[in-house]
Amino acid sequence: MDRMNWNTKSDNRAARLARAAEALGTQRVGKRVATDAIATLLEAVLEPGDRVCLEGNNQKQADFLAQALVGLDPRRVHGLHMVQSVLALPEHLDVFENGIAARLDFSFSGPQGARLAKLVSAGRIEIGAIHTYLELFARYFVDLTPKVALVAAQAADAEGNLYTGPNTEDTPAIVEATAFSGGIVIAQVNEWVDGKTTTLPRIDIPADWVSFVVKAPRPNFIEPLFTRDPAQISEIQVLMAMMAIKGIYAEYGVERLNHGIGFDTAAIELLLPTYAESLGLKGKIARHWALNPHPALIPAIEAGWVESVHSFGSELGMEDYIRARSDVFFTGPDGSLRSNRAFCQAAGHYACDLFIGSTLQIDLDGNSSTATLGRIAGFGGAPNMGADARGRRHASPAWLKAGREARAGRSGAAGTPRGQKLVVQMVETFREHMQPAFVDRLDAWTLQAQACMELPPIMIYGDDVSHVLTEEGIANLLLCRSDEEREQAIRGVAGYTAVGLARDRRAVENLRDRGVIRRPQDLGIDPREATRNLLAARSMRDLVRASGGLYQPPKRFRNW
Amino acid sequence: MDRMNWNTKSDNRAARLARAAEALGTQRVGKRVATDAIATLLEAVLEPGDRVCLEGNNQKQADFLAQALVGLDPRRVHGLHMVQSVLALPEHLDVFENGIAARLDFSFSGPQGARLAKLVSAGRIEIGAIHTYLELFARYFVDLTPKVALVAAQAADAEGNLYTGPNTEDTPAIVEATAFSGGIVIAQVNEWVDGKTTTLPRIDIPADWVSFVVKAPRPNFIEPLFTRDPAQISEIQVLMAMMAIKGIYAEYGVERLNHGIGFDTAAIELLLPTYAESLGLKGKIARHWALNPHPALIPAIEAGWVESVHSFGSELGMEDYIRARSDVFFTGPDGSLRSNRAFCQAAGHYACDLFIGSTLQIDLDGNSSTATLGRIAGFGGAPNMGADARGRRHASPAWLKAGREARAGRSGAAGTPRGQKLVVQMVETFREHMQPAFVDRLDAWTLQAQACMELPPIMIYGDDVSHVLTEEGIANLLLCRSDEEREQAIRGVAGYTAVGLARDRRAVENLRDRGVIRRPQDLGIDPREATRNLLAARSMRDLVRASGGLYQPPKRFRNW
Repeated sequence: MDRMNWNTKSDNRAARLARAAEALGTQRVGKRVATDAIATLLEAVLEPGDRVCLEGNNQKQADFLAQALVGLDPRRVHGLHMVQSVLALPEHLDVFENGIAARLDFSFSGPQGARLAKLVSAGRIEIGAIHTYLELFARYFVDLTPKVALVAAQAADAEGNLYTGPNTEDTPAIVEATAFSGGIVIAQVNEWVDGKTTTLPRIDIPADWVSFVVKAPRPNFIEPLFTRDPAQISEIQVLMAMMAIKGIYAEYGVERLNHGIGFDTAAIELLLPTYAESLGLKGKIARHWALNPHPALIPAIEAGWVESVHSFGSELGMEDYIRARSDVFFTGPDGSLRSNRAFCQAAGHYACDLFIGSTLQIDLDGNSSTATLGRIAGFGGAPNMGADARGRRHASPAWLKAGREARAGRSGAAGTPRGQKLVVQMVETFREHMQPAFVDRLDAWTLQAQACMELPPIMIYGDDVSHVLTEEGIANLLLCRSDEEREQAIRGVAGYTAVGLARDRRAVENLRDRGVIRRPQDLGIDPREATRNLLAARSMRDLVRASGGLYQPPKRFRNW
Repeated sequence: MDRMNWNTKSDNRAARLARAAEALGTQRVGKRVATDAIATLLEAVLEPGDRVCLEGNNQKQADFLAQALVGLDPRRVHGLHMVQSVLALPEHLDVFENGIAARLDFSFSGPQGARLAKLVSAGRIEIGAIHTYLELFARYFVDLTPKVALVAAQAADAEGNLYTGPNTEDTPAIVEATAFSGGIVIAQVNEWVDGKTTTLPRIDIPADWVSFVVKAPRPNFIEPLFTRDPAQISEIQVLMAMMAIKGIYAEYGVERLNHGIGFDTAAIELLLPTYAESLGLKGKIARHWALNPHPALIPAIEAGWVESVHSFGSELGMEDYIRARSDVFFTGPDGSLRSNRAFCQAAGHYACDLFIGSTLQIDLDGNSSTATLGRIAGFGGAPNMGADARGRRHASPAWLKAGREARAGRSGAAGTPRGQKLVVQMVETFREHMQPAFVDRLDAWTLQAQACMELPPIMIYGDDVSHVLTEEGIANLLLCRSDEEREQAIRGVAGYTAVGLARDRRAVENLRDRGVIRRPQDLGIDPREATRNLLAARSMRDLVRASGGLYQPPKRFRNW
């Protein structure tokens, strides 16, 4: 085949830049574009059908650019293919309602899940696929490369260098994929520095990766997604946290780990300097973390439990605390956090021995899902961290022990030796409104049919789950010798749910005798001791106090 | 616990920088250090027992810094813990022989594998673990964070910004982990630019992530690891490549893929514009690649087969070709490649439907290994790409079909539906010196005992292999219903090796009837047509010609 031009992408970029220069005139100085010229810029650089990444993290949002995109004329800009990790803002769906965008590949839709489901059934959005974060970033370099990236940073200098501040998050992955494939990168920033009298605290993204910078009228929105008020932790959660610590962390010697979001795991964090300390576990468990700077981790950090934390993003209010604890967090020469979702997801996948998180539904195979009817919630990072990393080759005691148990369980110690990741699903048998967490059939199956998905949206597959932990006890699925045993192990900790009540009592007692199911008393835990007094902080105020006043919770968490 | 100082890492960095400033005096201007002061710099900043990453990629080498490290006084610098992906240079082991370093965590030791094994048995090196690349990078952010990073770049400007040129490789991952954890980053560069009359073509690493820059007396060494001379491709390899294309790529519709190193996969690349074109497969297979710029891919690129290639590293001699084909490769505003091993490994793991590579030994479980006695070779990227990515959630036809076959195979279509990655091991039944590729027992087991490893160094586990391809045919392991069937499927393509001769003939014929084993004739391939004439290039000169003279092979590959 003869092809005359092999540089159509860079020619196309040059054409877009020329159009922008023409349209903007004096509203552009170098890479800086006047705030009120944003629509002019976007209409000049966007072409119908473009693949666009609108930075939607689960925390930081390019909200000004999102609003500007919604406001464009759909006759000029339409049919965009949005490739972004999180749908957090109404604008992220408005672009579909008004015809600016048509197709969507994403990871997590949290607050927009219900509206997303409606738009999908109305045929207003064509979903490509729902991904785990690192998987979506990976596709940015293969078959979902953005043509235009709309990102958010804290500040820019005159040349266009970007300082992201602590919420670096997805930005490096998005910008690298776009900038090196003939794409256009537009950043909204909260402030300018001139590079002379004021300079950037550090450079997170070099200027030559950035096409345009525009100052947003308001600082970008950041969601404090990982803050949990200790006042809301129940005694059942304390009991479950005690079981996690004694029955799993201590049992396997888990030194490197990731916690999901939620009160269940916040309770574990708050029991490290109290209950875990009393068991003599300090220095033996929970030393290295792939985790956002959870405020609930402050007491454990202060008590010297935590050697390192690498973060996906940051957390509002933790800035000064992080700066004052640079031995623990990854920080720049400016003292503020450098987060990086891509590297932290890699760390969660390959360098952690345990993932523990909550879910909404678990079935008899151990499959779990947070998908519920009428909502398309997406996956976020859980599938990546809650999957056995089969490419992993370095050993640790926790990983080897889990692998030995799995081999002994499945095939009586035959098979090639291999380690395994600990993947723990932690749920109360009933969640709010007395909805059972254990079900015969996941809502995910109905959702699959409704939304015409290729596969049901399972968050974590039963094959990958090592333990199910409820207030009734721990079911060690690794030790189960058959699918039938696994089913009974799950029923055995499912309490008074219909699934739990349908257990085969003899089989369950047999599993308990073999240590496959362990009740609190089997672990030497007296449920009466599971009180809130064990929590190292029982309120937001306690967390602030523990931080020596360095942690400054957002207003909505201040109730004193 | 009361702790007085939570910023010991940054204090320690400041102390090291102060020592360096003191020791260097006028041999330092800003971040620039005089070439002949390198020993002074290293002795000033290094402390005994430091965790050090000496950039050791599989291509680019920080060779000047490696030599300098070897030359230090072991009384001052000793007991270092080296954390680097590749041991390529003699100096990478010299540091252990002379006592500068004591402990090693790595990924691949290629040319140094035999010497490494000797040093380990002599007790001169303590190996932490052998990793796949992305796993080692992940640990840089968790429990193997470097204190000092010694990296290589093409050029630096006066401020210390770095331009890596096309071999960016591991540098971003190493530098980010080190710079944001209170560490010291020292870069050797091939050239200075003053930032005024001459500027960097682009910035790959911002200056404030870099502590010192030193100009090396010679350009850093780069190994052309991925160049294969088409003249050396045999007709058996052509036959195997035909089977791969017709029996696997076409069968599953593989659009996104990674190829290992070697003549087997080079043959596939060279058959795309000829054999695969004749099958009408253009645009249907092999569109998106996670791959270094293999010269053998030039004819397929020129024929319009390839939409995109993202690369781990670059390849010597491909610079001008890449620049002239920026639609296909990820390139910077300067026109040269931006590679990135971390992102490309993520792409290989999560965004590719197929990995195909060669191996040295396969056992009856389908486990494969390149470990041979007396050598500790390491893994490189193969375990990451040759493992089912269980965190993956987006569907593709290839992945869904593989998942359906696996489910049908293992449990008669029961189980939760899930996709699966295609992982193909491609070997001739006998390798050089008539060593059988199929063995009852991998050498890896003996090596495990010799080197006291926790697990045998298996490159790709049988559980993860979907197909074994030899000149005898394709064994589809997904369709096997039991371990016994899998064993017979492997024996069935093992030819005249002892493993092959011990087959159960009836079982193998039965597997062939069911399509589990497919011979060339079952695929409609006439082995007599498998001639070198099918190769789109039959020599290095053909590759140069196909590139329009843009590809400039290193001297040792020029034989005309």
